[in-house]
Amino acid sequence: MQSRRDFIQKLTGSVIALQISPAVIAASCNSAVTHYDGPVLRVAIMGLGSYGTRVAEAMKDCKKAKLVGVISGTPSKIKDWQAKYNIPEKNCYNYETFDQVKNNPDIDAVYVITPNALHHHQVIRVAKAGKHVICEKPMSINAKDGQEMVDACKKANVKLLVGYRMHFEPKTLEIIRMRKAGELGKVLFFQGLCGFNIGDPTQWRLNKQLSGGGSMMDIGIYAINGARYMVGEEPIWVTAQETKTNHEKFKEGVDETIQFQFGFPGGAVASCLSTYAMNNLDRFFLDAEKGYAELYPSTGYGPIQGRTSKGELTQPHVTHQTVQMDEMAGIIFEGKQPPVPVDGEEGVKDLKIIDAIFEAAKTGKKINLKL
Amino acid sequence: MQSRRDFIQKLTGSVIALQISPAVIAASCNSAVTHYDGPVLRVAIMGLGSYGTRVAEAMKDCKKAKLVGVISGTPSKIKDWQAKYNIPEKNCYNYETFDQVKNNPDIDAVYVITPNALHHHQVIRVAKAGKHVICEKPMSINAKDGQEMVDACKKANVKLLVGYRMHFEPKTLEIIRMRKAGELGKVLFFQGLCGFNIGDPTQWRLNKQLSGGGSMMDIGIYAINGARYMVGEEPIWVTAQETKTNHEKFKEGVDETIQFQFGFPGGAVASCLSTYAMNNLDRFFLDAEKGYAELYPSTGYGPIQGRTSKGELTQPHVTHQTVQMDEMAGIIFEGKQPPVPVDGEEGVKDLKIIDAIFEAAKTGKKINLKL
Repeated sequence: MQSRRDFIQKLTGSVIALQISPAVIAASCNSAVTHYDGPVLRVAIMGLGSYGTRVAEAMKDCKKAKLVGVISGTPSKIKDWQAKYNIPEKNCYNYETFDQVKNNPDIDAVYVITPNALHHHQVIRVAKAGKHVICEKPMSINAKDGQEMVDACKKANVKLLVGYRMHFEPKTLEIIRMRKAGELGKVLFFQGLCGFNIGDPTQWRLNKQLSGGGSMMDIGIYAINGARYMVGEEPIWVTAQETKTNHEKFKEGVDETIQFQFGFPGGAVASCLSTYAMNNLDRFFLDAEKGYAELYPSTGYGPIQGRTSKGELTQPHVTHQTVQMDEMAGIIFEGKQPPVPVDGEEGVKDLKIIDAIFEAAKTGKKINLKL
Repeated sequence: MQSRRDFIQKLTGSVIALQISPAVIAASCNSAVTHYDGPVLRVAIMGLGSYGTRVAEAMKDCKKAKLVGVISGTPSKIKDWQAKYNIPEKNCYNYETFDQVKNNPDIDAVYVITPNALHHHQVIRVAKAGKHVICEKPMSINAKDGQEMVDACKKANVKLLVGYRMHFEPKTLEIIRMRKAGELGKVLFFQGLCGFNIGDPTQWRLNKQLSGGGSMMDIGIYAINGARYMVGEEPIWVTAQETKTNHEKFKEGVDETIQFQFGFPGGAVASCLSTYAMNNLDRFFLDAEKGYAELYPSTGYGPIQGRTSKGELTQPHVTHQTVQMDEMAGIIFEGKQPPVPVDGEEGVKDLKIIDAIFEAAKTGKKINLKL
């Protein structure tokens, strides 16, 4: 009820407003397949790049969330998006003006999909504007910044969620369910291989100032996060080994390939690979006393495929970002608890691990973790 | 020709002897499916345990090799084997008497299938008796002992081969062929997961004095060896992390679970796991610029299964030990060069890596390798 009240306050400060919200009416008309008539999360996307576009497209099918605004430094992109997604002029902002979202009763939340290093200040500014924040992963470029973001959102009494789309993926959730139900027995080993060959060397993901790192920030984080939700424990140590074959493309501080290992309190271990220089790497494997589970592909945007020792996983594919945004609306408005957290604290844990992996790779030492 | 001459000399010292060797005649009669009429490698097995039994059974189908003798400390086992495999009394030895194999013209080679720590002295004794030696892996419990074995066999002018059965497995060889032919492109990553849940805690494999270690000596060596023949390079560094959950079963010096990583000169990396405490771990995965290859199961005794980015591997299953023994006869008598070496030098390389893995696990340091 608390979160429902929050939502209503965000709308216009009155319960009446909810009943006449145009966004809610539109969503109700569009969702012929369901009878959802609860509140719709009205979202502005900050950062209109390729992933922002993917989220916008996926949100067309959302029932509980709707794209209603944009924040961008490129006026021509704003024009395009306005036309494409029917976004009113009053819901458009640039990076100088977006603090004014505070006074916009038609936006409930901002989804920050900008280069990693910018998340920290942008999320804090959104929080100060009194709007809920969804922040794309990695939440920031180190745990200290991440914690400041959590604190700022708490202080502003807004929700902070991280764009962990796999936390809503049906086959992933089935494995987590099986593990929690004890159907796999004691977990012994997790393997996460995450990587692809990154193209254009001039992109922001290879610019340390904007990315805060290389493959680890972008794709290795899936293995980190996957290790945690697959094993169901927090790692207590990490070791890591970095390999760089292309020093021109992957400059100082931008990791090309890092192998890393975890130990867990229950005795399980994990072996992971993060790389920007190999293809065919999108695999999770979980070994346990009573059986195994594997996903391949495990984190790509397309259909996830997988099997356990009991057989093929047959949960239907859903567009990850569609489900993520609908579920996040449920978290924000209904106080729903997802099977795996997607809040800021979850994001900070991954950042603490990334900090430790970088330290382990640099020093060659085993780094103990306390999450 | 050199090796053929060697063989002939081993028989009785005269070319005539070859033509009337009962073993050769028997093999010719038994091998209806082929027209092989070359020399047959007449083998005595030392160590009549479960793996020795497996080799003996597999050798029933050999065309170029034949079980003709036994060496055991257990008289009842010798009796059983004599009856089962039609072994004459004069080809039976125990651990006190087996040096006398020197004077037995009907035995060409001894296959040493005893606990790891015994290989060193036993192989040297066989070499001194002037017989070729096949030594089960691991060749010994450290590289120093292994090198002494190589030197002793060289000095005695006998061949020393290590029981690397996977070096003759058809699907494995197809991947190696593809890699060598450049069909996979530059190799980037190898993963070898090798392990099983070991049973009886009183067995010699869990006794450091006899085994020289734990899972690494027994099963981790497949991942080490596999990394080398799959990548096609020798590793230049290794890191390792040991985890022990059962200190009662896995005592000091007997490893339960070790994760280890390699770096290769061409920039490829490998991530491996050796364990005596998990099931479902028998997987190789090779990632390269133009595609991938995987084997699962990758090293078990049964049919190996696998695929590459070009499709399923369809090479027919062969009993590994049958092919191994036939091929080893070809190496010994015909000087055949297998696609991947199985000689003592190959064994020493794996032992140097095992030495380094143990050091890396103990010190936490990256250990540089020169193979």
